[in-house]
Amino acid sequence: MSLNVNPYKGTKDFFPEDKRLQDYIFRVFRKVVKEYGYEEYDTPLIEPIDLYIAKSGEEIVNEQTYSFVDRGGRKVAIRPEMTPSVSRLVASKRQELAYPLRWFSIPILWRYERPQKGRMREHRQLNVDVFGVDSYLAELEIIMLTNSLLKEFGANPTMYEIKVNHRQLLDELFGVYLGLDGDQSHKMARLLDKKDKISKTEFLDIVDSILTAKQRDNGASEKLLSALSAESIEKLPKELSETDAVKEIKTLIESSKAHGIKNIKFDIGIVRGFDYYSGLVFELFDTSPENNRSMMGGGRYDGLVGLFGVEPIPTVGFGLGDATLLNFLEIHNLTPNFTSEVDLYVVIIGDEYDSAINAANQLRSNGINVAIDYSGRKLGNQIKIAEKKAINYVLIIGPEESKTQRFTLRDITKSTEDKLDIEQIANRLKR
Amino acid sequence: MSLNVNPYKGTKDFFPEDKRLQDYIFRVFRKVVKEYGYEEYDTPLIEPIDLYIAKSGEEIVNEQTYSFVDRGGRKVAIRPEMTPSVSRLVASKRQELAYPLRWFSIPILWRYERPQKGRMREHRQLNVDVFGVDSYLAELEIIMLTNSLLKEFGANPTMYEIKVNHRQLLDELFGVYLGLDGDQSHKMARLLDKKDKISKTEFLDIVDSILTAKQRDNGASEKLLSALSAESIEKLPKELSETDAVKEIKTLIESSKAHGIKNIKFDIGIVRGFDYYSGLVFELFDTSPENNRSMMGGGRYDGLVGLFGVEPIPTVGFGLGDATLLNFLEIHNLTPNFTSEVDLYVVIIGDEYDSAINAANQLRSNGINVAIDYSGRKLGNQIKIAEKKAINYVLIIGPEESKTQRFTLRDITKSTEDKLDIEQIANRLKR
Repeated sequence: MSLNVNPYKGTKDFFPEDKRLQDYIFRVFRKVVKEYGYEEYDTPLIEPIDLYIAKSGEEIVNEQTYSFVDRGGRKVAIRPEMTPSVSRLVASKRQELAYPLRWFSIPILWRYERPQKGRMREHRQLNVDVFGVDSYLAELEIIMLTNSLLKEFGANPTMYEIKVNHRQLLDELFGVYLGLDGDQSHKMARLLDKKDKISKTEFLDIVDSILTAKQRDNGASEKLLSALSAESIEKLPKELSETDAVKEIKTLIESSKAHGIKNIKFDIGIVRGFDYYSGLVFELFDTSPENNRSMMGGGRYDGLVGLFGVEPIPTVGFGLGDATLLNFLEIHNLTPNFTSEVDLYVVIIGDEYDSAINAANQLRSNGINVAIDYSGRKLGNQIKIAEKKAINYVLIIGPEESKTQRFTLRDITKSTEDKLDIEQIANRLKR
Repeated sequence: MSLNVNPYKGTKDFFPEDKRLQDYIFRVFRKVVKEYGYEEYDTPLIEPIDLYIAKSGEEIVNEQTYSFVDRGGRKVAIRPEMTPSVSRLVASKRQELAYPLRWFSIPILWRYERPQKGRMREHRQLNVDVFGVDSYLAELEIIMLTNSLLKEFGANPTMYEIKVNHRQLLDELFGVYLGLDGDQSHKMARLLDKKDKISKTEFLDIVDSILTAKQRDNGASEKLLSALSAESIEKLPKELSETDAVKEIKTLIESSKAHGIKNIKFDIGIVRGFDYYSGLVFELFDTSPENNRSMMGGGRYDGLVGLFGVEPIPTVGFGLGDATLLNFLEIHNLTPNFTSEVDLYVVIIGDEYDSAINAANQLRSNGINVAIDYSGRKLGNQIKIAEKKAINYVLIIGPEESKTQRFTLRDITKSTEDKLDIEQIANRLKR
């Protein structure tokens, strides 16, 4: 029986054309984050499962991660996210590292879920974190950096929107303003996080099921809806609008605007899925109606490094997935067109392989990317292969060319030919 | 209880200094293989376990791979090698692809084994394959490419040696010359593959245990030792030296030498661990006595793509692991020294954060990598952080600088200072 040619469920193969697009995305990631002074790190793909259970609970970890027991009896998981791993790294050198510490990575992540558009079981994510800054300046930098990233991809500010909230504001909304207990607050946060994915009726039904009869009678449901409908900080109920959390939201939005980022606003509905966030949180949304999912999310999580038994450290970070970004680039026609990375295709008449190899090696030492056709096919068929591979130049080498060391260079797009020596060819093709 | 800060057994964390070294290695990989016209691809980390069982057998796969059953009941493995995956990709588009097809990747691989120097459970490997060339020209290109790689890393030919053999020569040695059956041949090949890791006595004991009494009486053991001791093709027993396999070995060695690769020789002891090799095989060894392990290995495997139910395709490929290469570079003092990728560290007097952010953003738009100190520490302490991070330049911004828009640029290595405007700073720091 033959083996199956398809990739594993929920994953995709990267043929060279896909890989080039991914490479372009990663190149932009690296260029921009390095301009902000961030350095790249990496961690092993597998971590002890405890790392995830500590913050998300065993049930969620077992449901959503690729976890298994290794041959040594260790319970491990393929990392579903990078934040626990980077926290582990920082904790392991807590005293030696110089703060502010600016780190990034572009890890492979795995999560066990029903595959859907923009949600794959395997994906890659740009992770950017700044450690050791306890003021809004860290959040401001992360938001400026995100903005620079999208600009570098060719996006303009009408294509996306940044929404800001604060975990303590949610605590105050649930605990103080609505009078919910811890368990109710947790359920309400989870509900808010998936609000855009369910109908309004379904949302209200779940709200009612979370509230006690007494809370319902006291109008908690109406108060919640009223708070959620506040489109700006000013429209929040007074009990919420004068808190420290709201002041921090205001500062972040105002300073972002002062530095040229106008498409930023408050949204009390922004929750972020992970429990470890402790302060300001933000998400970036495509404004296109075709793609209303969150593209990027992040926030402050000051407690995570401390779980490793060292002094905690203020941290702000974000993650941006490659699949969601690719959706965005495609919807807004921002994906670039690529030509082949092979500069020259050498085709051969007769047996002139040694001569072709020598010519190719000389050109390679000039930094030119050269592929040789070893097929022995007819000349026309060899040239067709170059065209199929979208290579711009063909070099024809036969007995005559070997003798004179002058070769026929064909420009495929212009349909022109020239007889040139190696140095002239190198000069013509140098990028 | 605190979480553990150590990475999973047999793996390592890549702090920024480690990651930069790895990046340098990958950059050289990509530069050289692209010069030979190879294009990058990638595949998912997880594959159905059948992909590995088909060629290596269930026992080896279960012993040596990270395999598990997913929540959907599928038996899967984290890939221990890339060859089955790339064969799957080529098979999936067998008719559409244009040959010769030159592909490479630098995948993460996992294998379950006792960690030791140069052998990690997680590692990365450069994989290079050429599909669709049925002559020695494919092997020649792969050997030239390997040689160019090592040259680009700064190695000279005295530091390494390429050893060539042929699978069919081994078949003839075992089957025809020694009269072994298939099972005996298989055992003998495995023994040969680990010959350098065991003592001579142990080796001879195992040889004797593989042979039948009759074979031993007929001098099979002595014949084997005599064949293995042949240091050149000419010294092989005549029954072996006139085979097609030996002719191919000769052609490859001679053509490599003609193209400037002198450190290549025949070695009948080269087996290659994987069963799928079908023709010429080769390995590259460090000549340093400190590191006598194989650094790179490859060969021809014409049958693998055909396992996916399509017409087979001639293929030659090789793999080069990052850990073994790093050992080589370290032993020969070939690892480069890096300075920080952060070009400039902005330190702040007072509250001049907005002014610092503006200056940083202007410099970033000139492609300069700028980190800002947000700590509010004393100036001297901020500058010390720049020194600790090995950043070459510091920019000092206080109220006076904000007003005049002329900033103090300190060159840390030269201990000099200049008052400059942003444009002058940009010109000074542009790479």
